[in-house]
Amino acid sequence: MPAFQLRKLAVFGVGLIGGSFASALKQAGAVQTVCGIGRSRSNLERAAELGVIDEIASDVQSAMTGADLVLLAVPVAQTDRVLREIAPHLPPDCVVTDAGSTKQDVATAAQLALGAKLPQFVPAHPIAGAELSGVEASSPTLFRGKLVVLTPLQGTAPDACGRVESAWQTCGARVMRMTPKRHDEVFAAVSHLPHALAFALVEMLAKRPDAQELFSFAGAGFRDFTRIAGSSPEMWRDICLANREALLNDLSAYQTALATLAEHIRSSDASGIEALFRDARTARDRWINGRK
Amino acid sequence: MPAFQLRKLAVFGVGLIGGSFASALKQAGAVQTVCGIGRSRSNLERAAELGVIDEIASDVQSAMTGADLVLLAVPVAQTDRVLREIAPHLPPDCVVTDAGSTKQDVATAAQLALGAKLPQFVPAHPIAGAELSGVEASSPTLFRGKLVVLTPLQGTAPDACGRVESAWQTCGARVMRMTPKRHDEVFAAVSHLPHALAFALVEMLAKRPDAQELFSFAGAGFRDFTRIAGSSPEMWRDICLANREALLNDLSAYQTALATLAEHIRSSDASGIEALFRDARTARDRWINGRK
Repeated sequence: MPAFQLRKLAVFGVGLIGGSFASALKQAGAVQTVCGIGRSRSNLERAAELGVIDEIASDVQSAMTGADLVLLAVPVAQTDRVLREIAPHLPPDCVVTDAGSTKQDVATAAQLALGAKLPQFVPAHPIAGAELSGVEASSPTLFRGKLVVLTPLQGTAPDACGRVESAWQTCGARVMRMTPKRHDEVFAAVSHLPHALAFALVEMLAKRPDAQELFSFAGAGFRDFTRIAGSSPEMWRDICLANREALLNDLSAYQTALATLAEHIRSSDASGIEALFRDARTARDRWINGRK
Repeated sequence: MPAFQLRKLAVFGVGLIGGSFASALKQAGAVQTVCGIGRSRSNLERAAELGVIDEIASDVQSAMTGADLVLLAVPVAQTDRVLREIAPHLPPDCVVTDAGSTKQDVATAAQLALGAKLPQFVPAHPIAGAELSGVEASSPTLFRGKLVVLTPLQGTAPDACGRVESAWQTCGARVMRMTPKRHDEVFAAVSHLPHALAFALVEMLAKRPDAQELFSFAGAGFRDFTRIAGSSPEMWRDICLANREALLNDLSAYQTALATLAEHIRSSDASGIEALFRDARTARDRWINGRK
């Protein structure tokens, strides 16, 4: 039995992330009861059948009763509403965390919704598996070796932060901390921008009159480059809006980078093009080798 | 023994493409002798050791003597020079083909270099394996099920075209024909542009002062999106220059598409963003399902 122990975990939104978090803690013997709540009754029943949750809560109050950890694993756009709903029912010894891909918006929402209970909230972002979805795809091993970023607020209680860190470590994840602002800047660059670029390319080609012929000649490079354009349109719409400022900054910087490359090509500046491509490959090779 | 038979295949540049083409024809029993020629003696010796070629030619004339098929598998920027070198030694019953990723530049070079022998030249582009390189990576199965695009010129002899088609089919490839201009337009959109975009993103991030921190948070989505930025800088420099006009057109269209997306984000146009992302995902899903 691990040192980290929960009486009752309440999971709002039992999909890939919520289901995998619950399963991992159950498999580790770190939780007595998992209670699931969400908008789809059939999804919750499936989660119960799979043994991912032990109980289905029919209302927020019963979900919160006796809970010592609450995970919000709902779409980012719903976090605000759910925080307001749980606030009146939040027991004093209970810690709340989330799993959203953007953190400044969650920080603002939590400040408004939780008021004096803000110290009990620990915003978090597990970096794992965006391509699959649903409780059927959940797995107790999803977070093993994966990174989870905690972005504690000024008012967050240190022991609440420690509790959430222990929970994620029990799931096998590595935990790092950064500010919500820095988190959003970093992920704008390495995640939100690439998603926007991939969606934009596929959409641009898809609306050309010769789209069908073009796609028939697309190969493995195109497949990999556009894989993230197969992600959820709703989720990425919400991320783009939630992280608007940082993403617009990076989109603007990228437009400038493209203009520079286009100018190299227009002026047949072979060494300028080659230097740019070589710097890119060198940086990527170094990154790939460092990941191994 | 297949119906398609060659006495002597001369391969200029025995790397991934040249080596795989030679190996596939040898394995099919479709060629009596394969002669290799190139700038690196040690590479040719390795190719002979591996059984990919039977002979090493020390000069162009001896490589061409008795050859009934010549494959130019050299970097695109060298095609022009090699065409000029082989022109005086090209036997009347011999067909020449290439494997370059751009075709209008090759067409122009061939017209200038071959003159009255132009009917013997069949420009071609096998769509296969750009990430690996060298004869060590070559394989007789590389082209199985892959697409090869032939772009015959106005002056190309129909039976020369048929001979090259048979050779690629003997390697297991599917063969299509299109004009050099259309070829370059299509591959600008589905290959050259994505490569340029991936190189530009990695280079932009790599030169930021916080590059190391950014890369440390990059995940599987970033890895796949940027995989093509691990390609050869020299090869892609040459492709960008060879297909400058079509690529600049598509870069410009993409800049416009990004500006539209940025405007949706700036004005918090949730439905505009979602429609764009949804159209992209729908088109990509349809393409992926059609490939299976």
